[in-house]
Amino acid sequence: MRRAVVLLSGGLDSATVLAWMRREGFACHALSFRYGQRHSVELARAKELAGVLGAVEHRVAEIDLRAFGGSALTADIAVPKDRDESAIARGVPVTYVPARNTIFLAFALAYAETLGASDIAIGVNAIDYSGYPDCRPEFIAAFERLANLATRAGTEGGSPFRIHTPLQELSKAGIVRLALELGVPVGRTLSCYDPSPDGAPCAHCDACILRRKGFAEARVEDR
Amino acid sequence: MRRAVVLLSGGLDSATVLAWMRREGFACHALSFRYGQRHSVELARAKELAGVLGAVEHRVAEIDLRAFGGSALTADIAVPKDRDESAIARGVPVTYVPARNTIFLAFALAYAETLGASDIAIGVNAIDYSGYPDCRPEFIAAFERLANLATRAGTEGGSPFRIHTPLQELSKAGIVRLALELGVPVGRTLSCYDPSPDGAPCAHCDACILRRKGFAEARVEDR
Repeated sequence: MRRAVVLLSGGLDSATVLAWMRREGFACHALSFRYGQRHSVELARAKELAGVLGAVEHRVAEIDLRAFGGSALTADIAVPKDRDESAIARGVPVTYVPARNTIFLAFALAYAETLGASDIAIGVNAIDYSGYPDCRPEFIAAFERLANLATRAGTEGGSPFRIHTPLQELSKAGIVRLALELGVPVGRTLSCYDPSPDGAPCAHCDACILRRKGFAEARVEDR
Repeated sequence: MRRAVVLLSGGLDSATVLAWMRREGFACHALSFRYGQRHSVELARAKELAGVLGAVEHRVAEIDLRAFGGSALTADIAVPKDRDESAIARGVPVTYVPARNTIFLAFALAYAETLGASDIAIGVNAIDYSGYPDCRPEFIAAFERLANLATRAGTEGGSPFRIHTPLQELSKAGIVRLALELGVPVGRTLSCYDPSPDGAPCAHCDACILRRKGFAEARVEDR
């Protein structure tokens, strides 16, 4: 059975990616990060989802992004609330964490190489997304190219690395439909940037707004 | 004064890069990592060198590469000793840390973006090196391309990121000469993969062998 590393945040998107990779037949090693985020409840959800969705293992890597500051997700900058969709679609918001996906994928690459895996999956999406540059297809393609130059696999032969992005071309409604089709317990996923300590979503941040839009368009109730 | 992030390990190469970037006129922010390496004496040397060579600041980021194992530098695999130069030049050795430079550069990118810097420097070298894939020029070029897609700078204009590798085409002897020309206190740099706790080099690992060769060819005594 081929092994894969799946980046898992505890949100709807990454849980759907994990379920998709399982259906593709991969033995999935889920990877989450404790990176100084405002809330750690998402890590509890990630662990729960890794178990429910049949990951082989779930690791949490500690990294200290707070040392650099610069984001509402890690520093003392307020998470923006109640922005309309056109504002969300415009520009890079303050919730952007500098180089976050570059760092996450770099760790996933290290993990994959030690496992002997050449497949990595990430829940980026270029349609209903928050305007982060490191979610775009050209970023992912550049990382895939880098991965094959950075590693033993790139110099000593073996399978080339592949970065799987099954959500890349889906709308948020499409992700909701795919999640339900794959049996993801969507009610246990947490998309919010600013939840309460017990995991209740704020309902007003960009992530909550995009999620609500997705469920509405998919005509599904978000329990 | 333009700001730059300089990766600084405490070794001869990265200290030389810091001195070179200072001469180029950059305000240098030195960045080191506590990554589960066998010895932490190199971090003490990095701090000392950052001060002596005039860095604006020196930060140490904590990352946990031991979670993934897979290298003699971070796990319980013996560091190879007394290999001849042809063996060193052949293949990827067990001291290779999976995806290490990818991770280090990803952190440097995050730090640079929060500083508003677009210059990053790293002491990779493709001549007298240990056979790590992530030291090659094509890897660095791929990372530079990635950096410009990963960040605000890549989507909202501004100066493009540049990865400086002033040692790329130098022999180890050339690095020794450059270090002395730039006033690097070479006796305070530590290249060894397996030093004693007080910082004495083992004299038998690949890094010690390459360093000895460099000083011999440069006809300089390594104090």
